[in-house]
Amino acid sequence: MQEKQWAVSARQASYTLSALSLEERNAALRGIQAAIKKNAADIFAQNALDMAQAAEESLAAPLLKRLKFDEGKLRDVLGGLNSLLSLPDPLGRVSLARELSPGLNLYRVSCPIGVIGVIFESRPDALVQIASLCLKSGNAALLKGGREALRTNRALMAAMREGAAGILPDGWATLLESRDDVNDMLSQDESIDLIIPRGSNAFVRYIMDHTRIPVMGHAEGLCHTYVDASAAVDMAVRVVVDAKTQALAVCNATETLLVHRDIAGAFLPPCAEALKKKGVELRGDERTRALISCRPAAGEDWATEYLDAILSIKVVDSLEEAIAHINHFGSHHTDAIIAQDEAAQRRFLAGVDSAGVYVNCSTRFADGFRYGFGAEVGIATGKLHARGPVGLEGLCTYKYHLLGSGQTVEDTVNGAIHYTHRDL
Amino acid sequence: MQEKQWAVSARQASYTLSALSLEERNAALRGIQAAIKKNAADIFAQNALDMAQAAEESLAAPLLKRLKFDEGKLRDVLGGLNSLLSLPDPLGRVSLARELSPGLNLYRVSCPIGVIGVIFESRPDALVQIASLCLKSGNAALLKGGREALRTNRALMAAMREGAAGILPDGWATLLESRDDVNDMLSQDESIDLIIPRGSNAFVRYIMDHTRIPVMGHAEGLCHTYVDASAAVDMAVRVVVDAKTQALAVCNATETLLVHRDIAGAFLPPCAEALKKKGVELRGDERTRALISCRPAAGEDWATEYLDAILSIKVVDSLEEAIAHINHFGSHHTDAIIAQDEAAQRRFLAGVDSAGVYVNCSTRFADGFRYGFGAEVGIATGKLHARGPVGLEGLCTYKYHLLGSGQTVEDTVNGAIHYTHRDL
Repeated sequence: MQEKQWAVSARQASYTLSALSLEERNAALRGIQAAIKKNAADIFAQNALDMAQAAEESLAAPLLKRLKFDEGKLRDVLGGLNSLLSLPDPLGRVSLARELSPGLNLYRVSCPIGVIGVIFESRPDALVQIASLCLKSGNAALLKGGREALRTNRALMAAMREGAAGILPDGWATLLESRDDVNDMLSQDESIDLIIPRGSNAFVRYIMDHTRIPVMGHAEGLCHTYVDASAAVDMAVRVVVDAKTQALAVCNATETLLVHRDIAGAFLPPCAEALKKKGVELRGDERTRALISCRPAAGEDWATEYLDAILSIKVVDSLEEAIAHINHFGSHHTDAIIAQDEAAQRRFLAGVDSAGVYVNCSTRFADGFRYGFGAEVGIATGKLHARGPVGLEGLCTYKYHLLGSGQTVEDTVNGAIHYTHRDL
Repeated sequence: MQEKQWAVSARQASYTLSALSLEERNAALRGIQAAIKKNAADIFAQNALDMAQAAEESLAAPLLKRLKFDEGKLRDVLGGLNSLLSLPDPLGRVSLARELSPGLNLYRVSCPIGVIGVIFESRPDALVQIASLCLKSGNAALLKGGREALRTNRALMAAMREGAAGILPDGWATLLESRDDVNDMLSQDESIDLIIPRGSNAFVRYIMDHTRIPVMGHAEGLCHTYVDASAAVDMAVRVVVDAKTQALAVCNATETLLVHRDIAGAFLPPCAEALKKKGVELRGDERTRALISCRPAAGEDWATEYLDAILSIKVVDSLEEAIAHINHFGSHHTDAIIAQDEAAQRRFLAGVDSAGVYVNCSTRFADGFRYGFGAEVGIATGKLHARGPVGLEGLCTYKYHLLGSGQTVEDTVNGAIHYTHRDL
C-alpha cells in the first residue's frame, strides 16, 4: 500500500477539525454558503459545459436531469446549508456519565469518526450536501463524484474552499477525480475510517469486497408491504399505490406486496385496478392470479429490486409467513404492515429484521429529510453503527473520557478505593 | 459458499430470541445458573481431563492457569450471571421519538444485532460469560473456544442447554469445535451479523482479511501515558507504575511513556527507580538516556506492544508532539495524560483519537467490569458501532419504527399533510 498525500492530509486535517467549536464549524458553513452564492455564475457556466458534453455522449434523460445544476438546485443547496446550520451540535454529547469510584468519573462523549470517503453519483448538489454534513460533524471528507459532473464539481469545490479559507485546515475536503483514485482510496486503511459508496448494487458490493475499511452503504432496497387480514382495505390500497408509484427508481419503493389470504379477495381486485391505472405491471403467484389477471411471478421475482413500474404479489397464509418471507428475501431496508390489529402490528415490528419497520404508512418515508435529520449521506442496510437514513449522528462515534486524580487499579485491588458505579 | 446448518439454525433462533421478554431471557439465565451449579462435579471432572492433557502437552503455566476451572472460577461465573441478571434490559430502549407529521410517529428502538460469532481463547469461563451476554441482549451465539478447553466447554455448554431448555429456541447458542468451523464461520455472511475474535493481533487481522462479515475486535493495545509539564510528580510515578506493572500481558497496559521536556529532569529519575524495583526494563530515546540509565529505544520500539515488563520512554517538546506521537504510533485503545493544567487536559481529551482518553489515572482501568458494564465481550479499537469495552449495549443495534394511520408521501407533496418534526 502506497500512502497517498491526499489521504495523509485528510487525516491531519481531521485532528484539527475534531477540536473546532460549533461556532467555528458553523462560520465555515456560512462562508461556504456565501461563496457558492457569489460564484454561482461560474458554477452554472461549468455545469453548462458538463451538460453539453453529456448531451454529446447521449446520456439518458434522467441522468441529464440529475446532472443539471441550475437556479433551483442552487436554492436547494443554499436551503440545505441553512437547515444544517440550524441543527444542534452532534459533537460533545454525553451519552453516559458514571462515577466509577469517588473522584474517578467516566463520560462517553460523541466525537467525529475522522476521515470519511464518499463515492457518489453524478448529482453535483450531492457534493455540497455530503461535504457540509462531514464538516458539521467534524470529519474530513474525501469526495469522489461522477465523471460527468467533473467541471461542476471542481467549481463547487473551489467555491467551498474559498468560503472556508482561514477557518478550516487544508485537507478538510478533497475532490478526487479519477477512477484510479477510487482504488487508491480503498487501500488507505491507515488514513480513512469509513467509506460510504452510493451507486448500483454491483458497485457497492465491489467496494465491500476490495477494502479493509468499514463500508456503510446499502447494497439493495428490496422493500415489502404486507397487507394483514385486519387491514382497512381503502387505506391499504392508498398506501400500496404510494409505496410502489410515488417514485420508481428509488430504494424505498415497495417491490413485493404480500397479502394475507383472508383479505386477498376483498383487497387485491381494487388494488390491482388502482395500480394498473398508474401503469404498474403486476406479477403474481398462483393464488393472486386466481383473483386478478396478471403475469405469473417466477422464483427470482421475490429476490428482484425492480426499480421500475413492476410489482410482485404473493398471497400468504399468515403473518408469520409474511415475516419469514421478508426476512429471507428482503434487503433489511424498510418494510411495512397495513393492519388494524395491534397484536399483529407488534409482532411485525418485533419480527421484521429491517432498518425501518412501518405500520400503516408508505415505505417511501424512509429518508433522512423526512425523518428530520436535515439531510442524509445514504441509507444503511447493515446492522452495525448506523441503520436506516444516516445523518449527522451516523457520522459520529464516541470516546470514553475517564477523569481521575491519581487512581490506580492496584488501589482497587488492595482496597484503598472501591467501585461505586453510580450514574451521575 | 455452502450454508452451514448451525448458521441457519442460529439465524432462525435469533428471530425467536428477539421477541422474548426480559423476564423470559432472565428466566433462562437463572436456569443456566442453576444447571451449572448442579453439574459442577461433572464440569470439574471434564476440566481435570483437559488439564491433564494440557500438562502432557507441556502447556505454559499462564495458559494452564487460564484453562483451570475450579471452585473459584465457578463462583466467578455464578457471580457474573448474578450481575448480568441485575442489569436493565438493553432492548426496547427508545433513543429517538419524533412526530414526523400529526399521527405519524417515528421511534428509534434498540434491538439485538442477530447472530454473533465469537472466537475466544482457552478460558472456559469466557464461554459462559459470552453466551450469557449474547442471551441477555437477545442475540444467538456461535461460540468457538480453544481446543485445549474442549471437554470443559462441552460440559459447560451441555449444562447451559439443560438450564435453558423449554425457554430458549434450539440454536440460541452453539459450540463450534474444529478449526475448520472458524473458516466456515467466516463464509456465512448470510447468517452471521458480527464476528468478535479474541486472540493475538495476527489472528484478529487474519479474521478481518478473510470475511465480509463486520468484525469487532482489537488488533492491538499499544497504550501510552503522557506526563505533562504540569503533572504532579508523585502522582505521575504512581500512575505510571500501575499502568505498566499492575498486569503485564494485557492490552490496557502502558507500553510507551511520553514525558514533557520541562518535567523530565524531575520526573524521570524517581519514576525509573520505581519501575526498576518492579523489574521493568526501560528503553529510552537520547534525551531520556541523558537523565536516566537505560537501553536505547530503537525506531520499532514506538510501534511495539511488548505485553511484557518493558517500557519505552520518549521526551517530547510539547503536548502537541505527544498527541501526534500517540495518534501516529498508538492503537486507538487507551491513552492517558498526567497533568494539573486543565487546558492541557482538555486539549489531550479532544486531540487523542482513542477509544479511551484518560486524565490522571491508569490506562489499566479500560475494562468492562471496571466501567460497570457487568462484563465485556472484548475491547473494540475500531471506530464504528462500539468503541472501548463492549458490553450489552455494544451487542445491540436499533431499528426505526414508523407508526402511521395511512400516510403517504404523495400526501406530503400535494400538501394534504405537512412535516412537523416535533420531538415527542
